[in-house]
Amino acid sequence: MNTFDLSVRFFLQMAFILGVCNLVGYVAVRLGQSKVVSEMIAGVMMGPSLFGWLTPEVQGYVFPKASMPILFAVAQVGLSLYMFTIGLEFNIELIRKRIRSAFAVSFAGIAVPFALGAVIAFYTFGKMGLFGAKSTVVEVMLFMGASMSITAFPMLARIIYERGISNTSLGTLALAAGSIDDAAAWCVLAVVLASFSGDAQFAAIAIGGGVGYAVFMMVVGRRLLAPLGAVVEKSKRMSPGMLAFVLMLVMGGAWFTDYIRIYAVFGAFIMGIAMPRGKFAKELERALGPLVTTFLLPVFFVYSGLNTRIGLVDSTELWILAVVISAAATLGKGVACGAAARMCGEPMRDCLALGTLMNARGLMELIILNIGLERGVIGAPLFAIRVLMAIVTTLMATPLFNRFYKVAAVSPDPVPNALL
Amino acid sequence: MNTFDLSVRFFLQMAFILGVCNLVGYVAVRLGQSKVVSEMIAGVMMGPSLFGWLTPEVQGYVFPKASMPILFAVAQVGLSLYMFTIGLEFNIELIRKRIRSAFAVSFAGIAVPFALGAVIAFYTFGKMGLFGAKSTVVEVMLFMGASMSITAFPMLARIIYERGISNTSLGTLALAAGSIDDAAAWCVLAVVLASFSGDAQFAAIAIGGGVGYAVFMMVVGRRLLAPLGAVVEKSKRMSPGMLAFVLMLVMGGAWFTDYIRIYAVFGAFIMGIAMPRGKFAKELERALGPLVTTFLLPVFFVYSGLNTRIGLVDSTELWILAVVISAAATLGKGVACGAAARMCGEPMRDCLALGTLMNARGLMELIILNIGLERGVIGAPLFAIRVLMAIVTTLMATPLFNRFYKVAAVSPDPVPNALL
Repeated sequence: MNTFDLSVRFFLQMAFILGVCNLVGYVAVRLGQSKVVSEMIAGVMMGPSLFGWLTPEVQGYVFPKASMPILFAVAQVGLSLYMFTIGLEFNIELIRKRIRSAFAVSFAGIAVPFALGAVIAFYTFGKMGLFGAKSTVVEVMLFMGASMSITAFPMLARIIYERGISNTSLGTLALAAGSIDDAAAWCVLAVVLASFSGDAQFAAIAIGGGVGYAVFMMVVGRRLLAPLGAVVEKSKRMSPGMLAFVLMLVMGGAWFTDYIRIYAVFGAFIMGIAMPRGKFAKELERALGPLVTTFLLPVFFVYSGLNTRIGLVDSTELWILAVVISAAATLGKGVACGAAARMCGEPMRDCLALGTLMNARGLMELIILNIGLERGVIGAPLFAIRVLMAIVTTLMATPLFNRFYKVAAVSPDPVPNALL
Repeated sequence: MNTFDLSVRFFLQMAFILGVCNLVGYVAVRLGQSKVVSEMIAGVMMGPSLFGWLTPEVQGYVFPKASMPILFAVAQVGLSLYMFTIGLEFNIELIRKRIRSAFAVSFAGIAVPFALGAVIAFYTFGKMGLFGAKSTVVEVMLFMGASMSITAFPMLARIIYERGISNTSLGTLALAAGSIDDAAAWCVLAVVLASFSGDAQFAAIAIGGGVGYAVFMMVVGRRLLAPLGAVVEKSKRMSPGMLAFVLMLVMGGAWFTDYIRIYAVFGAFIMGIAMPRGKFAKELERALGPLVTTFLLPVFFVYSGLNTRIGLVDSTELWILAVVISAAATLGKGVACGAAARMCGEPMRDCLALGTLMNARGLMELIILNIGLERGVIGAPLFAIRVLMAIVTTLMATPLFNRFYKVAAVSPDPVPNALL
């Protein structure tokens, strides 16, 4: 396929992706589910698990192999811009307010699932083609541990803000614990990925570069960017030139962290945290939000779904493993976080709601799994099992949260996530 | 280069493109020039004409051949979304108000440059490697004619709106004539492109499909879409679901017109015209505008610039041809339109301003040239000459307009197009 044919096909893909995501989203919201879970499922449906299983020829026509680099590049850009907006919403002040409980909850939410993940990796290493041929047992244990301990922070934050409980005791604690947890899990993942290079020099570049980037952006970058915030605060609007300048920084940060082999989303997220707050952040979200979440981000879910082959989970053993991993994930994350909060004296209702929120893996899990698959740490069957785990934990979140914590949704959007 | 490497490089490309466009735009605006001309020039600078001529290795690293499909696909999507927003602003009522002058001006603005273009093609056919090896003299005459008669309608509209003169005599006439001219030129181009297929069946599909699509969208599509407009009018906001639905239609329309071998931008533009007006169109522009114009559209200018080799214009003959074509373009378009308006009794000042506006080729010319190059109708030297012509006519527009028609800019943006 030549350049022109690929671009024609890309239009078809975008129309198809938007149509399917919208339809599945419409059904999911009516069933009381979140938009993110609907897009995870829509992505899997468009891949070999359903669309390709029903009509391989048609699926192969819509998503030919040759177009994967285009889908991947667009997905990565969409993901980075999305993580940038998540960084924009990140509020460090919240962590300070509830420091004791937040650290207890997030420590429990990393240590327990990490241990369980490592144990599962240890016992399944070398079996059923779960892991990459070249990966060692230590690498596999580290990756499984890190990838089990992730939290769907963007989803958690969205639920908290949508319910209008970001200033309540539960809201503050969940946002603080979720953000510490996510930041820590990404750091662990960065170390794990860096260690895979084998070469000590590469590992040093990755870890040193990542830490250096984060420290530089938080200390120097923040101060250099502050005057831009004052300009927007005064003029009440962000000029196209300033928007382009910020986008250039985001792309640059994403490129740098990708280049040193950490990951683009990490660079974009840190860039978001370093940006000025107030009008500046609001204007950026207004400019980026609509197109990023409705147009670019679904491409990532599809790319992930194209790599997911539920059909590979084809033996009783593998299905048992899927159940064990999902149970371990819920036990290690949801139950451990809830228990830690209870030990810190939080009320029972808050502990249950908190455990549910922390347990959802959402989009973050898919990001990590795609990294693991792309670097050859995990194989296609385990990828499929873990996608199932991510969907299950995310599916549980909204209904359980509504049950434990009855607050009417105070959505900022009059017709949220609906088709029309 | 594998999928991952290409995506890493794409981040670098985006950061680089945004940086250069912003810098050149900053200088251009200070020199009283338009943003579009700065991006045309920035695109050419990033290609082999300057960046690749100075440091071929670095340019080859930033823009490797393997990444062209990604850049092209993103450029096409950006261009289509941009043309869709242009379609949203299209006002058919305006044409009715000034029908006589508008038709006279736009007829002159198509017939004269078409004739001049065809004559130039006739006399240069088969010489200096200007045209594709397989193209016939008739094809070449048709393409040169159609591509000379284009107007930078988006740029014309932007200048008119920025000056706040869209309701004046000149504003109405320019918008009406510009839109008729553009619509007609695109139709001529569609017929020309369809005729190239040689096969009568393909030509019938292209012409019949294009006309059918346009008629269907304007008659049936408009009515089907009208209720969506009422929903937005009532709720005062566009839900993410509706935005996704509209984007799906745009991508579908772009795909269809690309598939029948007219061109994606045509489908997206017609889709924009068919959309409900009022709050609906405003919300769409607000959601798409910032990211499309600052992030996606510059990719098209760069893609075009990567194909432009000013160095190929390396003989006195070719430089003479460049001057002849630029002079013929200005004579055929600017002078002819101004003269037609004068014959209709418009005041002299308006005629001069109108001729200047109609003469600018802007982005539209680049779109047509890229189609011609991609289909093999024109060769790389003529492409370079025509890009120069487009830049020259666009460079002339803003200063001449300001001279002929002294109106202070009433920009809707407090810091328009500036870096910070």
